[in-house]
Amino acid sequence: MQPSPMQTWQEKARIKVAETNSKIPEKWRLGKDDLVAAKKQRQLAGPFIESFLDGETLEITSHNSVPLLSKITSGHYTALQVTIAFCKRVAIANQINNCLHEIIFDQAIERAKELDEYFKKHASTLGPLHGLPISLKDQFHINGVDTTMGYTSLPQTLLLGETVNNLIGRSLNPVNQLLSCGGSSGGEGALNALRGSSLGTGIGSSVRLPAAYCGIYSIKPTHNRFSYRDAANTNPGQNTYASSVGFLSSSVDALHLRQSLADSTLSRASTDGYSNSNLQLKLGVFWTDGIVGPHPPITRGLQLVVDTLRGVGHKVVNWNPPSQATARRIHLAFLTADGGHDVHKQLNLSGEPLIPKNFQLREPMPLLQYQDLTLEGRDYCAAYSDYWNATADDEDGQIVDAVIMPVAPHAGVMPGKFYHVVYTEAINLLDYSAAVIPVTKADKNVDTFNSEYEPLNEVDRKNWEAYYPEVYHGAPVGVQLVSRKYEEEKVWVIAKIVSAALKAAGVH
Amino acid sequence: MQPSPMQTWQEKARIKVAETNSKIPEKWRLGKDDLVAAKKQRQLAGPFIESFLDGETLEITSHNSVPLLSKITSGHYTALQVTIAFCKRVAIANQINNCLHEIIFDQAIERAKELDEYFKKHASTLGPLHGLPISLKDQFHINGVDTTMGYTSLPQTLLLGETVNNLIGRSLNPVNQLLSCGGSSGGEGALNALRGSSLGTGIGSSVRLPAAYCGIYSIKPTHNRFSYRDAANTNPGQNTYASSVGFLSSSVDALHLRQSLADSTLSRASTDGYSNSNLQLKLGVFWTDGIVGPHPPITRGLQLVVDTLRGVGHKVVNWNPPSQATARRIHLAFLTADGGHDVHKQLNLSGEPLIPKNFQLREPMPLLQYQDLTLEGRDYCAAYSDYWNATADDEDGQIVDAVIMPVAPHAGVMPGKFYHVVYTEAINLLDYSAAVIPVTKADKNVDTFNSEYEPLNEVDRKNWEAYYPEVYHGAPVGVQLVSRKYEEEKVWVIAKIVSAALKAAGVH
Repeated sequence: MQPSPMQTWQEKARIKVAETNSKIPEKWRLGKDDLVAAKKQRQLAGPFIESFLDGETLEITSHNSVPLLSKITSGHYTALQVTIAFCKRVAIANQINNCLHEIIFDQAIERAKELDEYFKKHASTLGPLHGLPISLKDQFHINGVDTTMGYTSLPQTLLLGETVNNLIGRSLNPVNQLLSCGGSSGGEGALNALRGSSLGTGIGSSVRLPAAYCGIYSIKPTHNRFSYRDAANTNPGQNTYASSVGFLSSSVDALHLRQSLADSTLSRASTDGYSNSNLQLKLGVFWTDGIVGPHPPITRGLQLVVDTLRGVGHKVVNWNPPSQATARRIHLAFLTADGGHDVHKQLNLSGEPLIPKNFQLREPMPLLQYQDLTLEGRDYCAAYSDYWNATADDEDGQIVDAVIMPVAPHAGVMPGKFYHVVYTEAINLLDYSAAVIPVTKADKNVDTFNSEYEPLNEVDRKNWEAYYPEVYHGAPVGVQLVSRKYEEEKVWVIAKIVSAALKAAGVH
Repeated sequence: MQPSPMQTWQEKARIKVAETNSKIPEKWRLGKDDLVAAKKQRQLAGPFIESFLDGETLEITSHNSVPLLSKITSGHYTALQVTIAFCKRVAIANQINNCLHEIIFDQAIERAKELDEYFKKHASTLGPLHGLPISLKDQFHINGVDTTMGYTSLPQTLLLGETVNNLIGRSLNPVNQLLSCGGSSGGEGALNALRGSSLGTGIGSSVRLPAAYCGIYSIKPTHNRFSYRDAANTNPGQNTYASSVGFLSSSVDALHLRQSLADSTLSRASTDGYSNSNLQLKLGVFWTDGIVGPHPPITRGLQLVVDTLRGVGHKVVNWNPPSQATARRIHLAFLTADGGHDVHKQLNLSGEPLIPKNFQLREPMPLLQYQDLTLEGRDYCAAYSDYWNATADDEDGQIVDAVIMPVAPHAGVMPGKFYHVVYTEAINLLDYSAAVIPVTKADKNVDTFNSEYEPLNEVDRKNWEAYYPEVYHGAPVGVQLVSRKYEEEKVWVIAKIVSAALKAAGVH
């Protein structure tokens, strides 16, 4: 139904939600009691969602992407079987977790049938992702489907550390409903944690937050390693520090499926040497940025990674780069340089109210100041690069391969308590490549509140006081592994090495 | 001598010129009669400059970079021998052609001695360019040497199609002194044409103009394929459409010496398939942008390339991309968006007068307009890319590998008559990779003035009327071969293929 210009934004939103929900077939609808039961669950992922699924659906959706693809390619599953199984799981996921903004089951099933026809006729698959169900953040333009960009769903403007908007409200973390699912690809994170998608595609620094919060894997490439064409964005004319198209999945291997689709004319950092099983990595570890110290579960997560890597012979050195405070100041200035004009132009289309506080309407920044800021950003990147290069001057003569960092100072975030996004933001300014891997879960018995901690400043105090061991109990702890520009392949290989070491050590 | 703040810019300039000239050893100085004779020459390159050189200098400087390097590596020449020979040739070149802004013979000779020591001790060379004399545009910061950026030399601001400034005046084309040597790397072009350098390094679109005008080769990579660190620039805070570090040389092979030095973490387009000797290239040919039609020598140059390539079995199709008028409008708007503030800040340091008319001081562009323009640029690039991709829909199913284009609508330019820089500028906006190769020379007997040509507009008329067959006679005609982003290796391979075909056909 076409919204009429006379409708209020609330009416339009109601119509949109009703339309989306109507696309869930009757047979996959949950009863009122089930919905009430879902609200009371702490964890939706795993047994709870699975209690609604039949055997075949469970069996198909339990596979990670790479084995799933082989089963399709070998003819063990048809594309249609796989697609129906994922649609069903997604339908349940959305009813209990509020993570979808568009439902395109019909087109997916149509396409699956075509692929099965093709497979029958040619005895081969069509393209590298034949029959693999993927989800897309509601920022990619798709024929015949709205792109809301958070003006009616997603975190409004995308530039928020939580998934909250005026259409479907808030998406909570399916692993721990006391927490937000985090960041502008939060729905993607939730969906992947609920195994409703084999591979999620998101944009922004925010592919890292939901991965860390939901206990899955993700990769954030350098800008334009994957094309931004046919994707919407907030303030697209500010492209000095632009965001990136990235991927989320429940398996580290699946991330590479998309890597292989990157524009072949673009760069591919050499990973020669990284397949050597005697390889001794040299990694930096960034315990804290000295502005906001991470909560106990995060610090323990970093320590687990460091101990595990050292245990198998890799080197880990402390990381003290140029201050992230500088990166924060410059990046925020760019995001808000237009004085919120782009955001308000979008809001005015429907009249819906603004959510992110940074975007109050004001005078745009004067151009000369904007261009001077570009130079400050350039100098920060150069200083950071110098610091990185200088690790080659250590006695071992070896340059750091990647840096282990917090994704945020907390494992998930309580609604309204995200005070410091700088751990991801600094990497955005640098335009480096980063992968997120899960490490452990917060444990109230181990990660106790240290009441003697002396906060570094007011923001640090607020963040520290937002750590409630009871609330965080069970929340996934991820870390980011950071390499430099265009080193997506390299950082992915390192993520695989580190994940394998964590598995071998029984940590994750 | 340190300039005092009380000196006028004219005094400072005089001191700077005197200092530079004093670095030419007495024994390499030309007499007054020789200098007068030089002014009367039409062509300085070739026999005229060579009349001042001894046998060994001639013999060494006659080698292109790649064979020269082998002779150093094999021990046939010492680095010192080679360095002295080039310094000598450069000293003569500068006296007759006015192409240098800094002379660093002493450091070059010092370094050559070190390299010879190293070679003696280790029986191997140090790095891929061991002992090869190169020149650098006066935009790269070098220890102990001024970087003038055209405020005291080079074309002032670099953003001019001619090499003219308040320090050394105008550098003319050493192949035809009636013409300018063209563009902001004009001195580099002249020096390479005079064979005073084995490899020139420049910045800006302007590595293409001097190459075409001086009859040598050059390559312009995509932005940041080669690092901009330690280089100055005009208005560096405007990095939406930034320029590139590129190279010029008297041989196509030498360009690849620098390619091999590109940051290895950056992209390298695949050239698989391009080494196949049965390869059938598909090239576009851009006869005219429909705004300013090229002079007869350029059109004939394009025709020669097309005929030669077709003659050996390659395909050539007409090229009708989105209008370059759009690219021009957007690019110029970015160059002047700061209202000339950066340029005037630099001019005010010395008080020297402004040369390029586009940079009169005015109000900077409002930021929202600047960001909207970024979107127009993005859309132009997308439309151009669509046009390129659509060539794969031709009956042969083959996508165009590269496009043959004019570098400018003229072979060299008469001082003050550069009206239309759009043939290079559009490629800057697209951030594509391009190589320039020499094709032929203007010939007054063939390239006659067509008085019946009907100009498309006022600028076209001015450009057409600026074609004097007598003046242009003997001026080199180059073309640019254009590939897409990060396709430096590919466009270099194509440049080699086309150059070899032109040689085999006796065209060049």
